[in-house]
Amino acid sequence: MSTEAHFLLSKQFLLQSDLAERLYFNYAVDQPIIDFHSHLSPSDLATDKRFENLTSLWLNHDHYKWRAMRTLGINERLITGDASDEEKFYAWAKTVPHTIRNPLFHWSCLELKNSFGVTEYLNPTSAAKIYEQCNEQLENGSSHTARGFLSSYGVVYQATTDDPCDDLSFHSVMRQDPSMTFKVAPTFRPDKCFQIQDTLTFITYIRKLSLVSGVDITDMDSLLQALKTRVDYFSSLGCIISDHGLTQIPLNHQFSKALEYEFKAFLAADGKMSFSNPKAYTFYVLVALSKMYHQKGWVQQFHLGAIRNNNSRLSAKLGADAGFDSIGDYSQAERLSTFLNHLDATDQLTKTILYNLNPSDNAMVATMTGNFNDGSMKAKVQMGPAWWFLDQKNGIEQHLDDISAMGLLSTFIGMITDSRSLLSFSRHEYFRRILCNTLANDMKRGIIPNDENWIGSIVENICFKNARDYFELNSVN
Amino acid sequence: MSTEAHFLLSKQFLLQSDLAERLYFNYAVDQPIIDFHSHLSPSDLATDKRFENLTSLWLNHDHYKWRAMRTLGINERLITGDASDEEKFYAWAKTVPHTIRNPLFHWSCLELKNSFGVTEYLNPTSAAKIYEQCNEQLENGSSHTARGFLSSYGVVYQATTDDPCDDLSFHSVMRQDPSMTFKVAPTFRPDKCFQIQDTLTFITYIRKLSLVSGVDITDMDSLLQALKTRVDYFSSLGCIISDHGLTQIPLNHQFSKALEYEFKAFLAADGKMSFSNPKAYTFYVLVALSKMYHQKGWVQQFHLGAIRNNNSRLSAKLGADAGFDSIGDYSQAERLSTFLNHLDATDQLTKTILYNLNPSDNAMVATMTGNFNDGSMKAKVQMGPAWWFLDQKNGIEQHLDDISAMGLLSTFIGMITDSRSLLSFSRHEYFRRILCNTLANDMKRGIIPNDENWIGSIVENICFKNARDYFELNSVN
Amino acid sequence: MSTEAHFLLSKQFLLQSDLAERLYFNYAVDQPIIDFHSHLSPSDLATDKRFENLTSLWLNHDHYKWRAMRTLGINERLITGDASDEEKFYAWAKTVPHTIRNPLFHWSCLELKNSFGVTEYLNPTSAAKIYEQCNEQLENGSSHTARGFLSSYGVVYQATTDDPCDDLSFHSVMRQDPSMTFKVAPTFRPDKCFQIQDTLTFITYIRKLSLVSGVDITDMDSLLQALKTRVDYFSSLGCIISDHGLTQIPLNHQFSKALEYEFKAFLAADGKMSFSNPKAYTFYVLVALSKMYHQKGWVQQFHLGAIRNNNSRLSAKLGADAGFDSIGDYSQAERLSTFLNHLDATDQLTKTILYNLNPSDNAMVATMTGNFNDGSMKAKVQMGPAWWFLDQKNGIEQHLDDISAMGLLSTFIGMITDSRSLLSFSRHEYFRRILCNTLANDMKRGIIPNDENWIGSIVENICFKNARDYFELNSVN
Repeated sequence: MSTEAHFLLSKQFLLQSDLAERLYFNYAVDQPIIDFHSHLSPSDLATDKRFENLTSLWLNHDHYKWRAMRTLGINERLITGDASDEEKFYAWAKTVPHTIRNPLFHWSCLELKNSFGVTEYLNPTSAAKIYEQCNEQLENGSSHTARGFLSSYGVVYQATTDDPCDDLSFHSVMRQDPSMTFKVAPTFRPDKCFQIQDTLTFITYIRKLSLVSGVDITDMDSLLQALKTRVDYFSSLGCIISDHGLTQIPLNHQFSKALEYEFKAFLAADGKMSFSNPKAYTFYVLVALSKMYHQKGWVQQFHLGAIRNNNSRLSAKLGADAGFDSIGDYSQAERLSTFLNHLDATDQLTKTILYNLNPSDNAMVATMTGNFNDGSMKAKVQMGPAWWFLDQKNGIEQHLDDISAMGLLSTFIGMITDSRSLLSFSRHEYFRRILCNTLANDMKRGIIPNDENWIGSIVENICFKNARDYFELNSVN
Repeated sequence: MSTEAHFLLSKQFLLQSDLAERLYFNYAVDQPIIDFHSHLSPSDLATDKRFENLTSLWLNHDHYKWRAMRTLGINERLITGDASDEEKFYAWAKTVPHTIRNPLFHWSCLELKNSFGVTEYLNPTSAAKIYEQCNEQLENGSSHTARGFLSSYGVVYQATTDDPCDDLSFHSVMRQDPSMTFKVAPTFRPDKCFQIQDTLTFITYIRKLSLVSGVDITDMDSLLQALKTRVDYFSSLGCIISDHGLTQIPLNHQFSKALEYEFKAFLAADGKMSFSNPKAYTFYVLVALSKMYHQKGWVQQFHLGAIRNNNSRLSAKLGADAGFDSIGDYSQAERLSTFLNHLDATDQLTKTILYNLNPSDNAMVATMTGNFNDGSMKAKVQMGPAWWFLDQKNGIEQHLDDISAMGLLSTFIGMITDSRSLLSFSRHEYFRRILCNTLANDMKRGIIPNDENWIGSIVENICFKNARDYFELNSVN
Repeated sequence: MSTEAHFLLSKQFLLQSDLAERLYFNYAVDQPIIDFHSHLSPSDLATDKRFENLTSLWLNHDHYKWRAMRTLGINERLITGDASDEEKFYAWAKTVPHTIRNPLFHWSCLELKNSFGVTEYLNPTSAAKIYEQCNEQLENGSSHTARGFLSSYGVVYQATTDDPCDDLSFHSVMRQDPSMTFKVAPTFRPDKCFQIQDTLTFITYIRKLSLVSGVDITDMDSLLQALKTRVDYFSSLGCIISDHGLTQIPLNHQFSKALEYEFKAFLAADGKMSFSNPKAYTFYVLVALSKMYHQKGWVQQFHLGAIRNNNSRLSAKLGADAGFDSIGDYSQAERLSTFLNHLDATDQLTKTILYNLNPSDNAMVATMTGNFNDGSMKAKVQMGPAWWFLDQKNGIEQHLDDISAMGLLSTFIGMITDSRSLLSFSRHEYFRRILCNTLANDMKRGIIPNDENWIGSIVENICFKNARDYFELNSVN
């Protein structure tokens, strides 16, 4: 098996023409990165963490890799178990050659190359040398720390994902750290506020929320007041984005007086009763939060359509986000329409980004955004970049095609990592290469004007400027 | 920004090989146009309307353009508001360069070139010159009238879309006008007969239907009698096509005796009560109409899956068909199967064209047609051409691929404008170029026989002859 | 119309580069065929049937062809009616030129070429000569018998599809026939056990099952005991695979004590009462069977999402599997997840292959498999190859892309015929050519490593070795 990764060594990777190269190198490569959605650890960034080895940096939180390893028949011991870091690295090295055509293969090549200068394919033959080479840099490399990685990739703005109860202490530290070369801000993600069907977990969470907000939560009003307190707190620490993960937006169920009374009793019962209408609760609280976001001028995000923790046997052992989630096939259109319209009716629909996990929903989402873009600003309601299982070459190309044909590609705010890994910024390069190659192919085929200034400015906008303007980050660059 | 539209000037647009050019120029370009579905104004055609300027011709009814302008952040005043026609034109000219990869860009180029000889891209720099040039032709051009446009594009048959209550006076005039160089016929589209959930609107409509039909509508029988009267009237004025717009075909609910009594009471209540089972009503009336269509030998069309007027704030201001519709994600298969089978069981299923708006339904529709093609004629049940949001290069290519792989492309009756605009006939050119290029690519790759006579005859059939035979329009050419 | 089928004569068919040819001819072409799902007749194979003419071999059971002929407007008499075999062949010959871009065209060319050396396109001009040429070979050709076809295509393992009540006499004969050059084994397909809504048919079937199993079926326990008896019997005759055709996996309904009593009464009523909860019955029996499969170490298959016998008028005349089935649009994700998880929770999920008929479900299924691949073996839960309407060039390419991007292509167990026809083994060639061309294109574009050994070994695995290992057929080759 060859170990030299010729094509990844070359600057032409994914760029099928001189024109594609010119678009990429003249308009895309130097654009700063606004990574407006990730699951990076604020702690790692605040402490500028140095990692002990490549496994702890690269494998220990990456359920994408775990899933591939399990599919190949690798024992859990070598994935999340008590095997040594070196054993786990070899198990992954053994997996990589079998991942061709999966994004993991490209990502692995790019990440090792960009952060460590590795120019070979990772496989059992090359594993020892690569592990040593990377670990040496992780120990000594000046840019091989948490912040170092972000800086070297050109990040200017990094959003994390944070629970409303989080004290944001690491964010607070970073805001006052003069050595920060990029901005890090929290994202308000109150998913746990919606787990009302899991009564005990919910009640425990509400108690915690009472505590951190200083609001005694005894009914719907005080719950919303507590949440408002946290929205204000997040805002005070630079938060400008919220995020929600939902299988579906709930339908518009009325939160009646009777339900209000029941909710009060439910809170008082301290986990001893369940709530009869979780959907009405969800719709009501979601609308209330969205109105708070609107008041703050925040951007709200909705991640729709995942079916999570499908494997209860292994989820029980390994917890959430361990590689047992997949793509659902839920109805979304009427619910989305009703919800967005409900907010728009009183002109309280804030800037909104919709992410769909099922590619069959691309066309629905791409066209749904148009219903609520009312001329008040450029592309207020956005289709987010290709998400999770769709974050791969075909998925990105299909997303670009769908957003183009059924919306305005030129207004797209572009790519994010959505990752737990500090090396995932290569996904921005990956996206940009695909974008430039797609546009160059169209130019060469006479499908769009063969005008490099014109198309190049659209590249710049999608890679950076649209997001800068959308998030009003003029100060970042 | 360049203004010369090189690729659109060239005859090779979308034709990637000499072979594609030969197919297009030898077999497609001269085929007459049978535009069997549109929203053109019978009044404009009957009076051979001359337009005062390019805005009134090209922008004033085009919600596709409005939607793009709103997404770009253009104020409603410059779209549908009280701005001058010239201001509106400039606002659109500003939008066009940002529409690359959206069909609006190609359509705009083709329409200005084909009807006005414009050979530049429309943008803020070229806007003044183009506006002047087009307006001059609109004032004086011999072929720059409503009918002139159709004639110059080679239209031989034009269907409009008409309400059962319409007196068809303009159609009547045209049938007796010896100066007509093409045939115009109405389409029977009784969507308002199904808005029974909007009681007042419905009752008002029923009153109108009573009046124009001369049938006192007091129960289901008299309603169907009134509709039959209008079907006969439409038929007498050359109508051979019906059309229905539905989110979904209703399920088969029994219209019981109890419902018959209730319907009678409902009509008598004159808007003061609502009807309890709109779905049973819809299924019953739809089946009754379909049987009337079968008796007449008409073609029935079903447009399925749009989710309309999503933005109630702006729909209230601007009405329907203003750019606030999008793609729904409704279940369709069982309903379609049940409905078509219900008619087929008594051999009363007339020629039928199914249009799906969600591209995820392509495969379902392409294969559903096959269940009811019984050998009695060529492709009695058709999948209509790529509709609305799917009417773009990728959507057309995907549609051709799906209809090919899961049906018989060779029996396809081809393209329509489905437009409110007199310039949209360039969509037929657009479709034909894509069709020829697709087939030529396959010939060059050895996927289909490299036999220009064989494939060329299929091109001719899809562009014209299949539709001519399907609609039995042997007289038109 | 040309009759010489140049591209199909060439060894380059579907192989767009020298590299694609090398992959195909060095790694794919000589791999044996494990055809793990088909509808071939055990009787034909056991008796090594010789066919009287090309119509009886090639047209008489092929509802794909029938459907195309009906769409073209060919009278049923010439399809399934009382026309002569020669007339029927001419009707098909007339249809073929109109099937370009449908898989029927490629299949027809390949099948006639591979089995009869036909090097012309079939059409009305060539029909007489081809009919004569093929019939002569069918009469005299040494490899033109049922087994001869399989041998000449390199089949080493052939699964058929069999009802639990089948006595498997032909399988029994074949197991003791020393002249067999390949292995034939039954597949346990108990679909009729689930038709409980069709009471009379069901009761009749249960009586038959009682008889063949020797178990008096009076309640759920004895039903499961009878099924277990048949699972054992199938196993004793080499069965290692089961199969289920379902629109959807049923939701988890409890089969309560009350339902057990009702079921007992239902069986005793001998068709005079209906069963109130078919879904609870289906879930319960399906789970019980799946646990039996797990105990045996079988592979279970689920074919999901067809909507069958849509045309009741013609289905009544012609029966099932006559060309009146199509693609449904059912929700599948939650049901699949619940069912697979139910079995996995007690570690009783056996090897499983999921087939989806609606291409919109590709991504859902490709990602669902990953949830239950637990590292215990390579790709225990598989996405089956592109099924039925998706078994065509675009469908196969899309399937390869989806399984690649959202799973591990390298672990895929590859192609099947899923056919009633002895000539359909050309579908394996078709698949292999597409696979090699797809991989070669990626190698040439620098998307995967340009390493023929590496990629070639993946080709070998997908064409043969993965299936051999998955079905534990080390003895077959």
